[in-house]
Amino acid sequence: MGNAHRQLHLNLFVSPLGHHEAAWRHPQTNPEHLLDFAFYQRLAAKAEAAKLDSLFFADRLATTPNAARYGAIGGYEPLTLLSALAVVTKRIGLIATLSTSFNEPFNLARRFASLDHLSGGRAGWNIITSGTDAEAQNFNYEQIPEHAARYERAREFLEVTTKLWDSWEDDALVRDKEAGIYADSAKVHEFHHKGEHFAVKGPLNISRGPQGRPLLVQAGSSQNGRQFAAAYAEAIFTAQQTFEEAESFYRDMKQRAVQLQRLPEHVVILPGICPIIGRTEAEAREKEAKLVELSNPAYSLMMLSNRIGFDLTGCPLDGPLPQLPEQEVRGHQSRTHLIVELAQRENLTLRQLLQRLAGGRGHQTITGTPQQIADVMEHWFKNGAADGFNIMPQLMNGGLEDFLDLVVPELQRRGLFRTEYTGTTLREHYGLPHPGNRFAAQPASAELYETNRRAIR
Amino acid sequence: MGNAHRQLHLNLFVSPLGHHEAAWRHPQTNPEHLLDFAFYQRLAAKAEAAKLDSLFFADRLATTPNAARYGAIGGYEPLTLLSALAVVTKRIGLIATLSTSFNEPFNLARRFASLDHLSGGRAGWNIITSGTDAEAQNFNYEQIPEHAARYERAREFLEVTTKLWDSWEDDALVRDKEAGIYADSAKVHEFHHKGEHFAVKGPLNISRGPQGRPLLVQAGSSQNGRQFAAAYAEAIFTAQQTFEEAESFYRDMKQRAVQLQRLPEHVVILPGICPIIGRTEAEAREKEAKLVELSNPAYSLMMLSNRIGFDLTGCPLDGPLPQLPEQEVRGHQSRTHLIVELAQRENLTLRQLLQRLAGGRGHQTITGTPQQIADVMEHWFKNGAADGFNIMPQLMNGGLEDFLDLVVPELQRRGLFRTEYTGTTLREHYGLPHPGNRFAAQPASAELYETNRRAIR
Ligand SMILES: Cc1cc2nc3c(=O)[nH]c(=O)nc-3n(C[C@H](O)[C@H](O)[C@H](O)COP(=O)(O)O)c2cc1C
Ligand SMILES: Cc1cc2nc3c(=O)[nH]c(=O)nc-3n(C[C@H](O)[C@H](O)[C@H](O)COP(=O)(O)O)c2cc1C
Repeated sequence: MGNAHRQLHLNLFVSPLGHHEAAWRHPQTNPEHLLDFAFYQRLAAKAEAAKLDSLFFADRLATTPNAARYGAIGGYEPLTLLSALAVVTKRIGLIATLSTSFNEPFNLARRFASLDHLSGGRAGWNIITSGTDAEAQNFNYEQIPEHAARYERAREFLEVTTKLWDSWEDDALVRDKEAGIYADSAKVHEFHHKGEHFAVKGPLNISRGPQGRPLLVQAGSSQNGRQFAAAYAEAIFTAQQTFEEAESFYRDMKQRAVQLQRLPEHVVILPGICPIIGRTEAEAREKEAKLVELSNPAYSLMMLSNRIGFDLTGCPLDGPLPQLPEQEVRGHQSRTHLIVELAQRENLTLRQLLQRLAGGRGHQTITGTPQQIADVMEHWFKNGAADGFNIMPQLMNGGLEDFLDLVVPELQRRGLFRTEYTGTTLREHYGLPHPGNRFAAQPASAELYETNRRAIR
Repeated sequence: MGNAHRQLHLNLFVSPLGHHEAAWRHPQTNPEHLLDFAFYQRLAAKAEAAKLDSLFFADRLATTPNAARYGAIGGYEPLTLLSALAVVTKRIGLIATLSTSFNEPFNLARRFASLDHLSGGRAGWNIITSGTDAEAQNFNYEQIPEHAARYERAREFLEVTTKLWDSWEDDALVRDKEAGIYADSAKVHEFHHKGEHFAVKGPLNISRGPQGRPLLVQAGSSQNGRQFAAAYAEAIFTAQQTFEEAESFYRDMKQRAVQLQRLPEHVVILPGICPIIGRTEAEAREKEAKLVELSNPAYSLMMLSNRIGFDLTGCPLDGPLPQLPEQEVRGHQSRTHLIVELAQRENLTLRQLLQRLAGGRGHQTITGTPQQIADVMEHWFKNGAADGFNIMPQLMNGGLEDFLDLVVPELQRRGLFRTEYTGTTLREHYGLPHPGNRFAAQPASAELYETNRRAIR
């Protein structure tokens, strides 16, 4: 911050057909693209040509027959798709969402190390704890574990996975054919982790990837989520409706990081924006109206019920959002609060709220010209509310191009965004250092591990 | 069988640098290839040009500093690599090993369905239960669960995963933009599985792949393993040292399948062979001697100890294999028995045994000319000991080409192997039908599910 050369970072949130709930019904959309690799390959190539930092895939571990009835459900498991994209792209970062609640640390650490090798150091992990009963019910639970308990498990999960990623030092491989020594066994570590949730001996069965470990991304903005992010996250996705909220979140997160002895620039904050772009504002509004027209309130209501963990089906659409029960939100806490506040602040009917959420699901939606959108981004970026943005095109076919062809050049003209990649790894794109290794004799940078350890104890 | 057009099936067992323990030290080998995607891509292209049925990756969920000291440890997680290979190949099948003991059915089913979509129907799963304490110690256990218990879990694991793969019917996707109906919700099924090990509600969150479900492969030849394979496996990998043993195993497996009301040709039996090929027998023997020379008995002893779950380090190399304790083998049962019998039958010293195992690890090794190798294959194939083979080149760089360039054409000349692919899916390569769907109103073929259900109860 204050750095003359500070530029913003752009992540593309790949909702395959578009972030809007009705995107799949739009005339420009081909719903068969959902499972069409060539489509993803083209999309990645375009984002890479525009020099975006990264592609990102969200994830959920459940669906229902009814959700599939109205929504374009059932795309690829994120790491599978990113593994394939890794070998047809060269520079763009590849971020996959995986849940700490429903995976094993050894398997997850190994898959990300594999992707990091495969991509030459472009792997990132969006760490989630998952928030719905429907997901828990695919993994032996009746109900989603409690919020604090999920974050407790997530902390230990990160402790174990970072140990696994450190278990081979950067220079462990010797490959001395003459002597018959493949690896320096003093640089390959069993660590015998034993904790509340996990007992893992190590080492990992794949050597350390080019980045040391994947870029660690986090997206939960509750109190538990923030404290977790302050300890571990190197990039943070967040949904913020207003500049004021975004600025306050930004300040809070940087402060928390500093309190844990981390450098504030090592936590890159990326609010989401859902742009609908027209060459004129009127054209943009028309595009927006078309998407509203294609929306199905019954489906939107189902999705909202699922998101906030409270059944709203049957509530009158032209009344206000009903009062939710007072108890603590067990599922997606921060998003639920954001939605309730949005409805109250703007005094929205349920129908209006659904329309607002259909596109952004709580993220800021901006309908306007490339200049208007760039103005908002510049304002947030220069005034302590963002280090970059998580871009969620409402339509992928058409909407993505609008952003890449119209907004990105505008940001470049303003000197706000790179015109060439300067690094080769995802970490380098985000301006983050190569991480240290807790097992190495002379740790290159012990900063993060130290602070993590402190945050955990 | 008895069919005039019956041809054999060839699977390539991809030990990245070669199946021989010392392959990485060989002058022809570049150990950096272990993590070099371009190398795998070339290798897959060659195997596809030779019209092989499939590529296969074995797997283990642990290593040790000492194993990494002497062995080329630490390649890609199999599904990660196969996801990438899927998009740079067109026809060859892609089989990954994953353990039922250390995965969750929902995640595993989803990953295979994703690979099946990505590859256009070329995914296969080698189902293992894992057999070592070292692996268990990366997943919260102190010791590997008991043999029978592992197979019990494996059965329920298959019950759940096949339900997940059936949970979207083949024709569930409607994609009617006008009506706003994406899927026919009557063809997407919650199934509420509740068993001993798993409670999974369903449906899967990805639609049914081109093959319905991946080809199911199995490789455990113990009594538990055989009964499991008879119920579920569509292809069986097996290590057999002699024609007599192979023939008896073949007959036994076909009978078990028939007893479960399956068609014997729907269980394709593929013994492993480790060829060392020379244009003359003397040249082949020379190649073999070179590999022996590069071997390290201390390392071989460590690997053998690990495989049989009994510590042999310190035993005199020029004495016989010591008597193993009488108790039931908890880990890899059938392989342990095979090794003990081999040592006794041929009256081998420990050093000689290690040399035999360094290349084949219990699989049949054949050192000879292309004709000699084709003779053995033809003999086994025509006399009820094999439906095809699992090819384990001792060296990948050089040894693979020897097999593809010298043995495959010889098999083709004899009319024993295809010269063109006739199908597009892995299932089609192996002559297997599209599986039925237990949830469909008119199941296309209820055979396998019925027999599975019967085998389980
Ligand atoms: C950009 C963005 C992407 C997210 N992606 C996912 C996701 O893929 N899966 C998921 O379960 N939650 C996702 N979330 C939600 C959060 O990770 C988190 O679960 C949610 O905000 C609730 O966490 P909290 O209770 O700490 O607020 C995402 C949030 C944001 C802002
Ligand atoms: C060709 C072949 C490949 C195998 N691959 C693996 C493997 O990748 N991982 C593994 O743990 N076991 C592997 N096995 C071993 C078996 O799957 C099984 O674990 C072993 O034979 C012990 O099973 P059993 O006790 O039923 O005999 C393989 C066996 C064969 C014949």
